[in-house]
Amino acid sequence: MLILLKKGTPEASAGLVASRLRMAGLAVHRTDHQGQVRLAAMGDTTALDWDEVRNWPDVEAAQKIPVPFKLVSRTFHPQDTVITVGRCAIGSDQLALMAGPCSIEGEAQAFEIAEQVAKAGATVMRGGAFKPRTSPYSFQGLGEEGLKILRRAADAFGLAVVSEVIDTQQVSMVARYADILQLGARNMQNYALLHEVGHAEKPVLLKRGLAATIEEWLMSAEHILSSGNSQVILCERGIRTFETYTRNTLDLNAIPVVRELSHLPVIVDPSHGTGIRNKVAPMARAAIAAGADGLLIEVHHDPDHALSDGAQSLYPAQYADLVGQIRTIATVLGRRV
Amino acid sequence: MLILLKKGTPEASAGLVASRLRMAGLAVHRTDHQGQVRLAAMGDTTALDWDEVRNWPDVEAAQKIPVPFKLVSRTFHPQDTVITVGRCAIGSDQLALMAGPCSIEGEAQAFEIAEQVAKAGATVMRGGAFKPRTSPYSFQGLGEEGLKILRRAADAFGLAVVSEVIDTQQVSMVARYADILQLGARNMQNYALLHEVGHAEKPVLLKRGLAATIEEWLMSAEHILSSGNSQVILCERGIRTFETYTRNTLDLNAIPVVRELSHLPVIVDPSHGTGIRNKVAPMARAAIAAGADGLLIEVHHDPDHALSDGAQSLYPAQYADLVGQIRTIATVLGRRV
Amino acid sequence: MLILLKKGTPEASAGLVASRLRMAGLAVHRTDHQGQVRLAAMGDTTALDWDEVRNWPDVEAAQKIPVPFKLVSRTFHPQDTVITVGRCAIGSDQLALMAGPCSIEGEAQAFEIAEQVAKAGATVMRGGAFKPRTSPYSFQGLGEEGLKILRRAADAFGLAVVSEVIDTQQVSMVARYADILQLGARNMQNYALLHEVGHAEKPVLLKRGLAATIEEWLMSAEHILSSGNSQVILCERGIRTFETYTRNTLDLNAIPVVRELSHLPVIVDPSHGTGIRNKVAPMARAAIAAGADGLLIEVHHDPDHALSDGAQSLYPAQYADLVGQIRTIATVLGRRV
Amino acid sequence: MLILLKKGTPEASAGLVASRLRMAGLAVHRTDHQGQVRLAAMGDTTALDWDEVRNWPDVEAAQKIPVPFKLVSRTFHPQDTVITVGRCAIGSDQLALMAGPCSIEGEAQAFEIAEQVAKAGATVMRGGAFKPRTSPYSFQGLGEEGLKILRRAADAFGLAVVSEVIDTQQVSMVARYADILQLGARNMQNYALLHEVGHAEKPVLLKRGLAATIEEWLMSAEHILSSGNSQVILCERGIRTFETYTRNTLDLNAIPVVRELSHLPVIVDPSHGTGIRNKVAPMARAAIAAGADGLLIEVHHDPDHALSDGAQSLYPAQYADLVGQIRTIATVLGRRV
Repeated sequence: MLILLKKGTPEASAGLVASRLRMAGLAVHRTDHQGQVRLAAMGDTTALDWDEVRNWPDVEAAQKIPVPFKLVSRTFHPQDTVITVGRCAIGSDQLALMAGPCSIEGEAQAFEIAEQVAKAGATVMRGGAFKPRTSPYSFQGLGEEGLKILRRAADAFGLAVVSEVIDTQQVSMVARYADILQLGARNMQNYALLHEVGHAEKPVLLKRGLAATIEEWLMSAEHILSSGNSQVILCERGIRTFETYTRNTLDLNAIPVVRELSHLPVIVDPSHGTGIRNKVAPMARAAIAAGADGLLIEVHHDPDHALSDGAQSLYPAQYADLVGQIRTIATVLGRRV
Repeated sequence: MLILLKKGTPEASAGLVASRLRMAGLAVHRTDHQGQVRLAAMGDTTALDWDEVRNWPDVEAAQKIPVPFKLVSRTFHPQDTVITVGRCAIGSDQLALMAGPCSIEGEAQAFEIAEQVAKAGATVMRGGAFKPRTSPYSFQGLGEEGLKILRRAADAFGLAVVSEVIDTQQVSMVARYADILQLGARNMQNYALLHEVGHAEKPVLLKRGLAATIEEWLMSAEHILSSGNSQVILCERGIRTFETYTRNTLDLNAIPVVRELSHLPVIVDPSHGTGIRNKVAPMARAAIAAGADGLLIEVHHDPDHALSDGAQSLYPAQYADLVGQIRTIATVLGRRV
Repeated sequence: MLILLKKGTPEASAGLVASRLRMAGLAVHRTDHQGQVRLAAMGDTTALDWDEVRNWPDVEAAQKIPVPFKLVSRTFHPQDTVITVGRCAIGSDQLALMAGPCSIEGEAQAFEIAEQVAKAGATVMRGGAFKPRTSPYSFQGLGEEGLKILRRAADAFGLAVVSEVIDTQQVSMVARYADILQLGARNMQNYALLHEVGHAEKPVLLKRGLAATIEEWLMSAEHILSSGNSQVILCERGIRTFETYTRNTLDLNAIPVVRELSHLPVIVDPSHGTGIRNKVAPMARAAIAAGADGLLIEVHHDPDHALSDGAQSLYPAQYADLVGQIRTIATVLGRRV
Repeated sequence: MLILLKKGTPEASAGLVASRLRMAGLAVHRTDHQGQVRLAAMGDTTALDWDEVRNWPDVEAAQKIPVPFKLVSRTFHPQDTVITVGRCAIGSDQLALMAGPCSIEGEAQAFEIAEQVAKAGATVMRGGAFKPRTSPYSFQGLGEEGLKILRRAADAFGLAVVSEVIDTQQVSMVARYADILQLGARNMQNYALLHEVGHAEKPVLLKRGLAATIEEWLMSAEHILSSGNSQVILCERGIRTFETYTRNTLDLNAIPVVRELSHLPVIVDPSHGTGIRNKVAPMARAAIAAGADGLLIEVHHDPDHALSDGAQSLYPAQYADLVGQIRTIATVLGRRV
């Protein structure tokens, strides 16, 4: 249920309403919008007589949230969520440009790429230290050592850090080095992990699962928000279809849909969304034109020798060109790089 | 096989090479590129000794076309195909803007919409007279009467006409009224119909099938080209996936892929690609940013009373706004409206 | 609307009710079930006051048919439809065993295979004369000559004939030779063709489209029934999914679903449903165990030299073994070969 | 690489070959087949000169394993793996019948269902204590208390226990109560969890992911085997497609495919594979007819009040009838209940 308090309700009274809802066994989340306190009450809502609640002092209205994802919905939280990380305000007029290698492979590689993407305009550096790989015999990442390198490289060039976490036992360790915790497509419905990052103090980048509907994706975000962490960035990265020419089918339809349904920022990963280097820039442009809040792009200075995803990594110069193109397209939507 | 003749080969000699290939039972198609004659020879190519052919006078090279779609490929025909219809050069720097109602419903409706889309910048008017409908009990279109109305409305505002043909027995009749023959998604592998339009004198707009791979789509175009009609415009209109929030999943990845593989122009239909009015403009912008050669968009002045597809039709004013946005995005790609 | 007449209503009175419905502009279809006349009235049903109709003499009840496919539904026609072709009663306790080559390639091939499948227990011979092929450069079938051969071979061994029709202009010609007209998966939504076979006197075997939902498949059958031909046999042949190991994903779930929703017989084609010879027999057994009314299987005496689909064709001996296994499984469902 | 030793090679010599391979940095797994030792050597196989290895004493042959899943393949391990749990030999001629409620809800429910499924012929009881749920607000299972109840109920009726584990931190606890650790579809590519159960002493039931290809599914099994646990049971439970009538599309094609590619037993879950009670029995029969090694079926004595998956749970009497039908079908494949 969504409970709207009257404008001008004093803090103490607002707290009192929340307490009464909690005493009925409900979990209560709060947001403020245009000077009005909005409370979402979740759980067994049959425990209260809502006609009576509507008569509580300070309560203006009480209504159902008409979608299964409650805290994630615009019904609960009408304005855009903006998540500030380093120099980047994700979800604002400024587009969030995240770039870097698929995997951190070593000091030289990380510093080289960090310098290049920072120069081109990126504000967040990506880089995997724990790699979920289809084959147990493939490169699995450098582990904590990789995170240390990534942190140093990013710091050297004023970048924030996003890196993937693949197990509950690892969350606090990764959070020591990364500014944003990434949950990969394969773990989108790993609920133990969603709850664990829901208790972390860091923003979470939640990739859409390979075969997840938009609703299921938002429900996974709901698991994080309901655990207490409202700093979630959604990331469309392509879905699995019958088409095999591209690695995945980038579902850009999802961008305007998510922006209507949810207040969370949504960015696009055209590298995994296409899997082919010379298709990344066209789809990155398309993502921004469709209204995405940013881009997550794989960049490598020597992709032919990359330990993973070389075929879909941009050269630094290509990335710089792309940022230039994005700059113009952004103006059409009243945004900037 | 692709046979390249030496530059400067006289016409008569080029004709001779073609004749010798035909005498071996092969079908021969010709294109000229940068002053060089290129011949595609199709059929049972084992009938010739190709090492010998390479020694024929005037033959510079003979090589396999490494894709199953031969005439459609850039290997055979490197430069972009440009198809001129009315004031529109489809496949050129000028974007092809096609718009109009799903179905022609009557004189007043057609003229009203024609005027509006022409004013906004469209050069081709769409409108169905024969509607393939899932249910036999739904509105099936006005038939030939609808085509007459469409033609008059388009003429009144200087627009060309595109309209769908759904059966072999109907092709010559539709061709009397329409400048472009549309083949719908459900008929993409209706080979009898592909061959029939392959013998028509009019350009063909070939929509991608609901579950067609890019390769199958190009193979269907190959059926048309191999029947003798090289004026084919491809149209991405969304594929069927597990996602149900949108009517289809618009596969914009296909745009850069098709542009690499083929010389044929490729446009996008974001109306069917999303099925939701307020998602059409974002995806139309995205399509142009991804490199599409144009847009096919459903516009209706009174969509709530449209006999089909009202929910995905833009209001004329929305269409005009969209064209304005497209204008800026086009500049990033060196194109114009 | 479904109008049930009182039991014992005389023929003349039943005709009168039908006439009154038709005079209101509705199309009327009739079936009899357990001594009761059932009328389905289709079209603009708002033209009548149904409360009034319920008071017409002889009318027992008038109710909505709660599915979009009306004549195809069990609501209209509760008992199983049985279609008799040659020695085979399709939809009865006797399983319909249809077998033969993908394409008719010549006299010797056709007679050889006809003899073998007849001996194994098949009652209907399949064989394509007009082949829809992805590539315009592949074998397209022998045409009418192929149909003549197929007819002679089938007659020689007491088999009925099923063969594909791919264009409206061809229906009456194919109907001269075949007992059952096959509509292929690619033409499931070729509405012009559906209407044409809807006017034919021969039963129609309607394959499910590659990406057709069960509802769309039944709606395509509705096009045929509403055109006047109620002899439709449905055929599941695999749908397109992300899995690429098999040619298609055979959706056997569809069998119990269709049997609940519709009175039409439904058979399975495990040859196209798997695309791999040694997977055909397991899936044929599974189809019968799931409740299918029969099987359509590709059999070739020399599949390595088949002009199409050799890789998925059974050897005659494999087919004979399979029929033996089916015989036992059929008993579990109270059926027989 | 697969290294075959000569028949009659003494144990000590076989150990020596394995040691030499390990000294080259390779992981070595061993199986014996028809009196012959077979070693799979994994890792950076370029570290050895394989022509030289072929000349080592006792080595008969060294060859590549032509599939990415090595230990899982029949190339490495030709005979069927049989996994013995309680009274059940999974992968043998005896079909593995696993049944029980979706979730353990309490003592009475668990004992009631255990008694009924045991009487019908099941040998393994299923029941969830930790439920992965799309919504954070749905019933999440009874946790460890649920496992205790499940164990007692199963023991009371001589059944083994299979139950799901959803996080690495939970594996050893679940293993205290369950005989088989289930990995759900959503966790099929949770590699941390795959490795954790790879170190457990209990067999693992690995469900196929919603959008996993057969190859990816086998690769996930490879993660478990390469971690040291070769007791893996595969379970097909339906994939996600465009069809929405059924909850999932049960891919029975996968049964004969997996049985050819791998030595691991493969069972089918028609409850999730259809999501509709009256479709479970037809698809269960089909699964056995297609060659599955067993069935995992949801049974509930009061499905209308089940806390999860009631709509797809069989009544105990339906389950008993089904087992009777399976008994006959099994004979066709030389198997028994």
